[in-house]
Amino acid sequence: MIPALKDVQAAVKRIAPYVHNTPVLTSATIDAMLKATVYFKFENFQRGGAFKIRGAVNAILQLSEDERARGVITHSSGNFAAALALAASALNTKAYIVMPSNAPTVKRDAVAGYGAQIIDCEPTLKSRESTLIAQQKKKGATFIHPSNDMNVILGHATAVMELSKEAKQLDVVIAPVGGGGLLAGTALAVNHLHYYIETIGAEPFGADDAYLSLKTGKIQPSINPKTIADGLKTQLGDQNFPIIQKLVSKIIRVEENEIIEAMKFIWERMKIVIEPSSAVAVAAIFRNSTEFKNRKVGVILSGGNVDLSNLPF
Amino acid sequence: MIPALKDVQAAVKRIAPYVHNTPVLTSATIDAMLKATVYFKFENFQRGGAFKIRGAVNAILQLSEDERARGVITHSSGNFAAALALAASALNTKAYIVMPSNAPTVKRDAVAGYGAQIIDCEPTLKSRESTLIAQQKKKGATFIHPSNDMNVILGHATAVMELSKEAKQLDVVIAPVGGGGLLAGTALAVNHLHYYIETIGAEPFGADDAYLSLKTGKIQPSINPKTIADGLKTQLGDQNFPIIQKLVSKIIRVEENEIIEAMKFIWERMKIVIEPSSAVAVAAIFRNSTEFKNRKVGVILSGGNVDLSNLPF
Repeated sequence: MIPALKDVQAAVKRIAPYVHNTPVLTSATIDAMLKATVYFKFENFQRGGAFKIRGAVNAILQLSEDERARGVITHSSGNFAAALALAASALNTKAYIVMPSNAPTVKRDAVAGYGAQIIDCEPTLKSRESTLIAQQKKKGATFIHPSNDMNVILGHATAVMELSKEAKQLDVVIAPVGGGGLLAGTALAVNHLHYYIETIGAEPFGADDAYLSLKTGKIQPSINPKTIADGLKTQLGDQNFPIIQKLVSKIIRVEENEIIEAMKFIWERMKIVIEPSSAVAVAAIFRNSTEFKNRKVGVILSGGNVDLSNLPF
Repeated sequence: MIPALKDVQAAVKRIAPYVHNTPVLTSATIDAMLKATVYFKFENFQRGGAFKIRGAVNAILQLSEDERARGVITHSSGNFAAALALAASALNTKAYIVMPSNAPTVKRDAVAGYGAQIIDCEPTLKSRESTLIAQQKKKGATFIHPSNDMNVILGHATAVMELSKEAKQLDVVIAPVGGGGLLAGTALAVNHLHYYIETIGAEPFGADDAYLSLKTGKIQPSINPKTIADGLKTQLGDQNFPIIQKLVSKIIRVEENEIIEAMKFIWERMKIVIEPSSAVAVAAIFRNSTEFKNRKVGVILSGGNVDLSNLPF
């Protein structure tokens, strides 16, 4: 059930021409504060401003010629909408994006700008799903789930593969968890690379369905999540949960003020714009600093798409 | 009067162990918008968050052992205060910084954090100068002017030397102008590298004393400057003005809203935090885009020290 190392390596090779090998950067200030060595993988510099294009490209490239000719479809109002649109455009494939009618204009514009066709739905789960099914049938397009799709997970796994080339002998890798695609991909790649490296998830207290899912042993719905990290409001799926359950050692939960402080810290000290979802992983290493002391820590910073006219500071 | 190429090269070698060779980055989006090739030299990633440490280190390293033992002194409430404090700390030299009593706490903390001694003065030019002279005499410290000192100018010249190694065959280089140290240093290095490369200054309309100085042929005071680019409120000096006069082809002035838009654009698209003074140079290439078309343009982004709790958007 869990893909092999060669599957991850194949994904790395497959998507390389279409994605950036994003920079791995360190901060002497942060290392001194934590008494640790922290390697940040800056996926905010990725095409589309987030890691999501990795999974999108990998999934599209796994389709048959016939399937690609009919296009791909997904539902998302966030980074995956733009990522699938961008990936489809780069691969000469038609993309249909089901978006709620109340999605921010800036996100709709980004998706449209990449040449995808936006299909409106009501801002409810029911309307989103029924609209998707109806359109999928009508267009004959292949549905690519933003996080619960093994090819998407394998695509997302490539970020930590790149990280491990630059940051040798990591002791632990930490990634934020929302829908679970990035965390599952990270965990499976890490496990194949060196079985003794720990993989940890980071999640807001206000959207701690992954924490609760691990604790109870079954997927918990994300009910009325409240967090500034809007990319982490979604819930785990049956493809990624078993991987997370088996290979992730734990989930560290963080408070909203810790997320905001961590975000501000990276902006101020490293002069780099990361989004709240990325800051969740930074907040986790600060919150639990004792356990990271004297360790080599890899942190996946998921993206940098922030609404500058609506900042928390 | 204008230093030779070997003087600039010596400065490059002299300061290299103490400064970062900051990244040169490009943006496909910006290149497509301007139909130009733009190389950004990101001095916001420099130690202390701005290019200023280049001049500070170069100036301190030119002192005699005896002078260094007595320390250095300057007046500044901005980036140079922190830069001189940081440089002095790295070089085991005592630094005294004359700061107005109303300087922001965050700036005072930075200076003190680097181990410099802060000397308070009233927030007037008169008090600043008399306090400096009195303290200089008392401590026996050497005064290092933030921008009107040839060793500082030579230190600042090193940024474009690094840029030219990564961006070959530039047609034009643009840098913001405040006190004139960065622009003069950039112009003299550029001129020695390739006489046909143009050097342009960028300045806010609300603080256009350099523009007026070039126009009238003599240094114009910066009277009541009003701009968000607080690093550009100072005026030219007798060391840097002759260089600017001889080697800078012109000054492009920009409006406040253009500065804010340019800053926002770099933050949003490149995910990098630059300060308003840096955004002035970006705004200039957007404002005068026609003249940069089909050219290779180097842009010196001076720094990234921004008060996140007081943003213009």
